[in-house]
Parts: sequence; structure tokens; C-alpha cells
Amino acid sequence: MTVSPPPAPGELRILPVHGIGEIHPRDDLAGIIADACNAQPATSLLDGDVLVVTQKIVSKAEDRIEAIDTDDPRGHKAIVERESVRILRRRGDLIIAETSHGFVCANAGVDLSNIEAGYAALLPVDSDRSARRIRDAIRHRLGIEVAVIVSDTFGRPWRRGLTDVAIGCAGIRPIADLRGSTDSLGRELQVTEVCIVDELAGAADLVCGKASGVPVALCRGIDPAWLGDGSVADLVRHPSEDLFR
Amino acid sequence: MTVSPPPAPGELRILPVHGIGEIHPRDDLAGIIADACNAQPATSLLDGDVLVVTQKIVSKAEDRIEAIDTDDPRGHKAIVERESVRILRRRGDLIIAETSHGFVCANAGVDLSNIEAGYAALLPVDSDRSARRIRDAIRHRLGIEVAVIVSDTFGRPWRRGLTDVAIGCAGIRPIADLRGSTDSLGRELQVTEVCIVDELAGAADLVCGKASGVPVALCRGIDPAWLGDGSVADLVRHPSEDLFR
Repeated sequence: MTVSPPPAPGELRILPVHGIGEIHPRDDLAGIIADACNAQPATSLLDGDVLVVTQKIVSKAEDRIEAIDTDDPRGHKAIVERESVRILRRRGDLIIAETSHGFVCANAGVDLSNIEAGYAALLPVDSDRSARRIRDAIRHRLGIEVAVIVSDTFGRPWRRGLTDVAIGCAGIRPIADLRGSTDSLGRELQVTEVCIVDELAGAADLVCGKASGVPVALCRGIDPAWLGDGSVADLVRHPSEDLFR
Repeated sequence: MTVSPPPAPGELRILPVHGIGEIHPRDDLAGIIADACNAQPATSLLDGDVLVVTQKIVSKAEDRIEAIDTDDPRGHKAIVERESVRILRRRGDLIIAETSHGFVCANAGVDLSNIEAGYAALLPVDSDRSARRIRDAIRHRLGIEVAVIVSDTFGRPWRRGLTDVAIGCAGIRPIADLRGSTDSLGRELQVTEVCIVDELAGAADLVCGKASGVPVALCRGIDPAWLGDGSVADLVRHPSEDLFR
């Protein structure tokens, strides 16, 4: 295995994984990703790497693709409504909904881009499980321990523009809890629960782009202390502490 | 000037800038950052680099530090209320407020961490201007064109954990507008206004950490097409399209 040059101290590298083609239902996604990574020296997998896999190819591999019922005047909105456990806001064509996973996002994550006309891509049923399968298959195949994040593109209520966030993870703690650490002046820090999986998903988006056919990025150089068991369920704000639902 | 080894094609590198000590009012922040960058071969500045500068040191250099009035029973909340143009939610000690800049965040951005006890750090008056000053000073001093993002740590209404976002920028467009590009299947993409400055701010947070005294990160390898004029005012969702205010 070719090892990349050592990064500068503390450096984080975000590398696009090239060579992943179209994904189809029941494709061996972990095998395709592992092969694509190891086909390039720069992305040959190492222990502690974090793979960020965009939701669309996970949904395709897991056959979460559904034909839009042309007889239903609601079109793909019928799927959106079925995938929603609660609709928070509706304006024109836009539905802000809560999904079964607890995510609040546009159209309950149902998406028509990067997919054949007449079809919609639904979120994976359990993206933690999707991430775990990829992580386990890579360990089994290569003996390498990587963390995996499944990412999707969400809006924000008060800020324009979209960012990628984590909808599933395996082998990485979603939140780095720095509460109780002291800051550089020796005072106790107040609130510093950093959502590292969302920050990694966003960083990966910067190299994946939307139209360039790069659905996976590799993040190298994260703090090994952040690796471990975790679930995106930890990211869902409990309704009791939610001020905006 | 030492040039870092070329990154892998499409790679984004996030490098911590070491050696920036405590910042004090009226310090030459741009000079301190430029010196710290160029003191290490790995971070020696290049055209097209993006510097992410955390808000706290900008506020300190601009003397946006205020003593908390010990006679006021509201303590630092008095400052929070004054810095708020509108209070959206209040629960216990937490105030979610809109600032004069249009940002919606906890405590109107007023912060007590990484600052002497008895004092509060306020947001810069105009973080775009703060970013522009650093960018202009580095161009003047070194003849190098960098983009600058001023970042701060915000919460999100429905997701636990904090992420860093942009509160000011110069030399970079805050949103990469991919509307109208075609996706990998040749269909027109639907909504892909990616908030690249927030994704860069979050990526930078991953190398800065909260307690490690690294208040600046350098991002190398972004798409040159993203460089240009921009303001974080472009990120503020207009009340007319805001469903959650």
C-alpha cells in the first residue's frame, strides 16, 4: 500500500475519491469505494481515515429509488408527504418536514437531482447502518479501520445557501465534547460541543462539488480521540430542548 | 518563499497556523497572522489561499471587549440585550437573538470564553470590513492575494452540537451558485447554492480546536472560480423568505 506523504502537523487533508461511476441497486458500494480509493496513491486507505459518502449513492445502492406516480397530481410531493412524520412549514413548492430519523429538512430529504427523470431518491432507512456496513466491509476486505459518514445537503432557516451535514456515521463520535476543557486563559470553557461530523461533511462537499461526479471524499488527519462509537441520533435535538419546531 | 508540495488533484488542505499568541486591542492582526503563516514552510502564504480567522481574535484586536457591569443584576445579559435587535426565543439562561448584522444566534454573539473573567467579547461591528482589512494588509505587505473569512461558532435549531460559520468575508464569494449546471446525468440541477464560506469555516474549526490556542487556519486548494467580491450580507435570509423567525 502506498502511503501519502506525511501531512504538516495538525493538517487536515480533504481528498476527492475519483473513479466511482454510476451506482446501481445492489452494487457492492463498499467494494467500489475501496477499489476507487486504492487505485490512486493519494487516497490509498489508512487507519483513521474518514470517508464521507454522499447520500445519493447510498440510496441508489440500497435501492431507495422510487418511480413518481404519474397518476398522482401531487407528483413527487406524494412521496415527500409519506416520508414526513411531521410537516413544519409549507410555502409554495417547498415543504420543511421532520423525517422518521428526526431530521428537519426540505422535502423530507426526497430528491430529484442526480437521478433519472421520473424517479425520486429517498433517504436511506438507517444511514448509521449504511455507514457501518461500509466501515465493516472495508475492515473485512483490507484490515483497515476507517470511519464513515453519510452526508446530505440541507438548508438552514436563517442563512442562505446549503451545506452538507451528516445523516449517518460509524466509527466516529458525532460530537466532540470539549465541555470542561480549559481555554487558553485557563478558564473553564462554557459550551463547546462541536459537531465534527457536520463540519467534516461540509468540508467533503467542497471537494465533491455537485456536478463533477465525485460522490466520496476522504478526510485524513482528524484527531484520533474523535474516533469511536456514535450515531447521528445523538445529533437530533430532543423536542424538549427545541425552541423552533 | 517556500512553496508547499503540490496537493493531490482536487485536494483541499486545512492547515493550522501556529505561533499566534494572545491578541490585544489595537494589535496589527494582519501583520501577526502574516508573520505566523510565513514562519512555517507549510503555511507560507500563496495566491488563492483562504485564511479563516476566528472571531475572538478579531474582536480583541478591534477592542470589542467590554467589562461586565457588576452593578447590573442581569450581568452579561445586559450586553446581550443591547447587542440584539430582536429576541426570538428565551429559555433559562439562553437567549436566541437577531444581531444588527442579521445573524440569528445564541446571546447575540456575545461570548465569555477565551477572555478574561469579568469581560465579554462582542461581535465585530462589520466582519466583512475586518476581513477586508486583513486581506488588503497582506496584499500590501506581501503582494499576495488571499481571501479571508471571519468565523464564529453558532448552534442550529434542530441539530445538537455547534459548528463554525462565516460572519465576514473578503475576496471570496460566500455562495457558489451552481443553479443551472447540469448534474452527472445531464439533468438540470435544482437547488445547489452551496454556502462555501460556512463549509470552509467549519473545516477550519476542525484544525483550530477550541482549547489549543490556534485561532487561524489556512485553506489551500479551493476552486479559483469561487474567489471574488462578496459579503456575508448575502447569507442573511430575507425575512420575506424566512419561515422560522
